[in-house]
Amino acid sequence: MDVKVYMETLGSRARQASRAMARASTAAKNAALMAIAQALRTQKAALLDANRQDVENARQEGLSAAMIDRLALSEKSIEAMAKGVEEVAQLPDPVGEITDLKRRPSGIQVGKMRVPLGVVGIIYESRPNVTVDAAVLCLKAGNAAILRGGKEAIGSNQAIAACVRAGLRAAGLPETAVQVVETTDREAVGHLVSMPQYVDVIVPRGGKSLIERISREARVPVIKHLDGNCHVYVDAAADPEKALRIVENAKTQRLGVCNAAESLLIARAVAPTLLPKIAAMLTAHGVEIRGCPETCALVPQAKPASEEDFYAEYLDAIISCKVVADVAEAIEHINHYSSAHTDAIVTEDYAAALRFLREVDSSSVMVNASTRFADGFEYGLGAEIGISTDKFHARGPVGLEGLTSQKWIVLGQGEIRQ
Amino acid sequence: MDVKVYMETLGSRARQASRAMARASTAAKNAALMAIAQALRTQKAALLDANRQDVENARQEGLSAAMIDRLALSEKSIEAMAKGVEEVAQLPDPVGEITDLKRRPSGIQVGKMRVPLGVVGIIYESRPNVTVDAAVLCLKAGNAAILRGGKEAIGSNQAIAACVRAGLRAAGLPETAVQVVETTDREAVGHLVSMPQYVDVIVPRGGKSLIERISREARVPVIKHLDGNCHVYVDAAADPEKALRIVENAKTQRLGVCNAAESLLIARAVAPTLLPKIAAMLTAHGVEIRGCPETCALVPQAKPASEEDFYAEYLDAIISCKVVADVAEAIEHINHYSSAHTDAIVTEDYAAALRFLREVDSSSVMVNASTRFADGFEYGLGAEIGISTDKFHARGPVGLEGLTSQKWIVLGQGEIRQ
Repeated sequence: MDVKVYMETLGSRARQASRAMARASTAAKNAALMAIAQALRTQKAALLDANRQDVENARQEGLSAAMIDRLALSEKSIEAMAKGVEEVAQLPDPVGEITDLKRRPSGIQVGKMRVPLGVVGIIYESRPNVTVDAAVLCLKAGNAAILRGGKEAIGSNQAIAACVRAGLRAAGLPETAVQVVETTDREAVGHLVSMPQYVDVIVPRGGKSLIERISREARVPVIKHLDGNCHVYVDAAADPEKALRIVENAKTQRLGVCNAAESLLIARAVAPTLLPKIAAMLTAHGVEIRGCPETCALVPQAKPASEEDFYAEYLDAIISCKVVADVAEAIEHINHYSSAHTDAIVTEDYAAALRFLREVDSSSVMVNASTRFADGFEYGLGAEIGISTDKFHARGPVGLEGLTSQKWIVLGQGEIRQ
Repeated sequence: MDVKVYMETLGSRARQASRAMARASTAAKNAALMAIAQALRTQKAALLDANRQDVENARQEGLSAAMIDRLALSEKSIEAMAKGVEEVAQLPDPVGEITDLKRRPSGIQVGKMRVPLGVVGIIYESRPNVTVDAAVLCLKAGNAAILRGGKEAIGSNQAIAACVRAGLRAAGLPETAVQVVETTDREAVGHLVSMPQYVDVIVPRGGKSLIERISREARVPVIKHLDGNCHVYVDAAADPEKALRIVENAKTQRLGVCNAAESLLIARAVAPTLLPKIAAMLTAHGVEIRGCPETCALVPQAKPASEEDFYAEYLDAIISCKVVADVAEAIEHINHYSSAHTDAIVTEDYAAALRFLREVDSSSVMVNASTRFADGFEYGLGAEIGISTDKFHARGPVGLEGLTSQKWIVLGQGEIRQ
């Protein structure tokens, strides 16, 4: 198989299908989504069979238990997928919305219309549910999608793709609107990210090395999600109860997620009284504390932090900790060390809250709330295709709107430029 | 001089200055703008001297008359620059605007805050007025800027940069918020576009080969402007008077600009009656017509068009012309051949107008108006840093809003995630 020719064929079909998707009615797109949910349910046995084979192969190849866990489907997880598809059908259709229509002195009316991006390429690792989540979000936003999953999930992904095709067919939409790359050749990724004539944007979902490789090779825009090195800053004017509750939730509710806190900053004025209590709570949860010298002086169980600790996304029961002078030093520290994902301040001081909101240069900035809220569902987007740590186009949780663009429209009555 | 070290020094200073610019008040930014306008006026003699030297060197190097024309400043053009700066001071400050603040079931309030992009790199060719236009738009949007102009304008650009620094200094803002690259080494461009730690976005302004080179080498997002192959489609239901007026204005008002029409499409039903009239008007303006076989049969003076003609951005007194069946074929032709800059339909038919607006995948889509309106001033943006033919982030004319981003803000009362 000539992988380049194969990928160009997928790309050309996707570009063609994207035109039909862009003009598809909301009713047709929703009918396709409902039919996809239905197909996932009726094809459950076939999905489970295909997935069992993938899991069997993964065991033989010696994949880790964690990877096999992410790969495995169950009756319950298939039902959850189907429900998720139905929820996307309930979301408002973003396409065609016209905003800011204003009359200009020349007589023309100028405004913006929300339109699909076109063709979205998704590159991901082992979780087969990404196949259906990504497909249906792209579909609802009027895009065509090319999905490249991990090779260990190829059987499951093809079985899911068959359900998606059945749904598109039932609604009279082109089956090529969602295509799964059927080769596991690594070369396919290189071609997918360098066909600007066919692909408008790449969304990589997976580990840092995958995303860095794609960013390096891409010749099309990438909506990327790098680290989540999230901070909670406990200000001098923090309510101690809120500080304890928020740090506990942000760090310990789930350790391995990108919106978990990885670093605690605390104002010098309250560190002697408050930090030992917070540290005791963290220690009780089994969290190791790696601190600056002042932290270590106040918290006997803390270990000294290295410079690298302040950059780290542990995704584990470890937290870095630093005592800072005030909100200004906290902001400076965060803008230097943070991965620009999500950072929170705990304070009852109006000026400190406003300053933190304005100056912290991250995709989500919070006052008196847990970083764990940084999520498409919690923000009311209904669903998300990822969380962008870029500043460009889509920032933070990316839902349907991030999969669209706005073009300018001009409504005239025969006006010409003088 | 080690160009890499030099560019990294500029980058690091710009990143530092961008923090101060992000928190600068609207009053301070406007004071800087007014002081820059003042400095341009008081330093007029020095600017003209520096520019005369650039022009002299350009003549000795044998640059074309057109390039020297773009390079040359005059008392009048300096006054126009100063006025332009004052106009940017009058524009509303986009930074800090909070929108879509909604309460979620969890109790948190979620919204978006408009914030600067950070550090903007501008790469351009000979026109020295770009130095001041780009600097002041970046400044007003709260960004730091690194400007890399053409080597033939280096003296003029440095003289302008001195005025910008004087204005920043007068307003108490960091002078490093606007830096002009002082080396003419081509290597500098390669470094500027590959320092994601210091530069958030690159805006290239210039010819296609410059922009293609930058897109190829860039490791940071690029807001790019490629061709303007703009179409006017005269529908079967067009008002003949409007069609004539709009085609005349779009093609002939200014030949060498990106929003001039380069291709005319006309519905078969009206081609026999209307196309000869339009052709006669174009011929009277000295415009050469390159047409499809049907066009040539109806218009004796037309020459046969090649496939390449339909892709061409002539920027000259030439237009390609094709007879199409209907709006559907016009849309298909445009989505295939257009550069996605600006395309217009002339029609009195409601359904045709709506379909064209929705389905043409270009940054500006117009009904019954001249493509020449695609411009930041005409759209009410006040000023523009360029016209983007990308779908991502900023599309069409890019003003202050395109130089900002939106981050999520969360206002809580101590909420944690369940």
